[in-house]
Amino acid sequence: MIELPDVIKNAVSALTRLPGVGEKTAFRMVMNMTQWKDAELENVGKSIISLSHLKHCLDCGMFSEEDLCSICQDTSRKHSASLCIVENISDLMAIEKSGTFKGTYHVLGGVLNPLLGIGPDELGIDKIKDRIIKEEIKEVILAINPSVEGDATCSYFKMILPENILIDRIGFGVPIGGSLEYLDPLTISKALENRKRF
Amino acid sequence: MIELPDVIKNAVSALTRLPGVGEKTAFRMVMNMTQWKDAELENVGKSIISLSHLKHCLDCGMFSEEDLCSICQDTSRKHSASLCIVENISDLMAIEKSGTFKGTYHVLGGVLNPLLGIGPDELGIDKIKDRIIKEEIKEVILAINPSVEGDATCSYFKMILPENILIDRIGFGVPIGGSLEYLDPLTISKALENRKRF
Repeated sequence: MIELPDVIKNAVSALTRLPGVGEKTAFRMVMNMTQWKDAELENVGKSIISLSHLKHCLDCGMFSEEDLCSICQDTSRKHSASLCIVENISDLMAIEKSGTFKGTYHVLGGVLNPLLGIGPDELGIDKIKDRIIKEEIKEVILAINPSVEGDATCSYFKMILPENILIDRIGFGVPIGGSLEYLDPLTISKALENRKRF
Repeated sequence: MIELPDVIKNAVSALTRLPGVGEKTAFRMVMNMTQWKDAELENVGKSIISLSHLKHCLDCGMFSEEDLCSICQDTSRKHSASLCIVENISDLMAIEKSGTFKGTYHVLGGVLNPLLGIGPDELGIDKIKDRIIKEEIKEVILAINPSVEGDATCSYFKMILPENILIDRIGFGVPIGGSLEYLDPLTISKALENRKRF
């Protein structure tokens, strides 16, 4: 077998860290990149390195160039006294895209997972509680994905938040455009459970 | 709609240059990378930039840390007087993996394509001709993929190489493990044309 230069091997192993990229895909990407101009390689490389300069909103955790993101700066959203707790920034953006929620967010950065050593301290849940009290939030929407860990995280919030705050979890059921025939039994059970008088 | 920081937008647009990576995949990759440690980002970024330091074998064009690659340095392979012309390094590696060819290679770096302005000069075909004569190559195997441009490139080699050199093109037909039922009509025609007495 022919031995590849270390430069190639390093690049392949670095790219396999990306989601959905295995060794074969990484190799294909690297072989393609070997035909690029130096300036193009530098552009991609530097733009990846500069991701480390990303700043986050001090209140909610969303990307932000300033101390507060545009959502947290929006007083009308603050005044709604409604806080949506999401696992990550992609989830926040998905909700924003729907255009339905008009309150503020809090990015959790994960869910409780004792096996991975992620407890309430790692997610800064105390900080969220303080924020909810300080900002006089009246309604908390837990937009946390359904999973054993997600469910546990929601239960934990229910346990620690003051009783006068309304706590909702997003609805589970048949997605729009979905077909009962192809959905898993658990989703169907949830959809039946969450049925609404028509 | 929420506005993303330039750092994210730049990284997404840089990654879409990779083969098989569209805007959605690039965005997913970037969002994943925003959770990485600085050192990991630097590792990936630098390993991509360092691809510009790759050196190529002066004879065949394969990657090589020295002036000549391990294949071109192997005198037994030189002595076989058989040269295999391939489009790119991935093709060379695919042939090497088969373990069947024991001569030397030449990486063309593409095929003739007048529409893209790729002519014999761009591919350095004169240099290959000089090499074939200088190294007293007796047999040239054109391992060039079947396409209109590939066929034209092969015809061009046939035209310019001295008549005393045997010129072969790799065989086309049913791939091993393939099923006639699912193959395209052109491959079937080629397989019938290239049939061999059993």
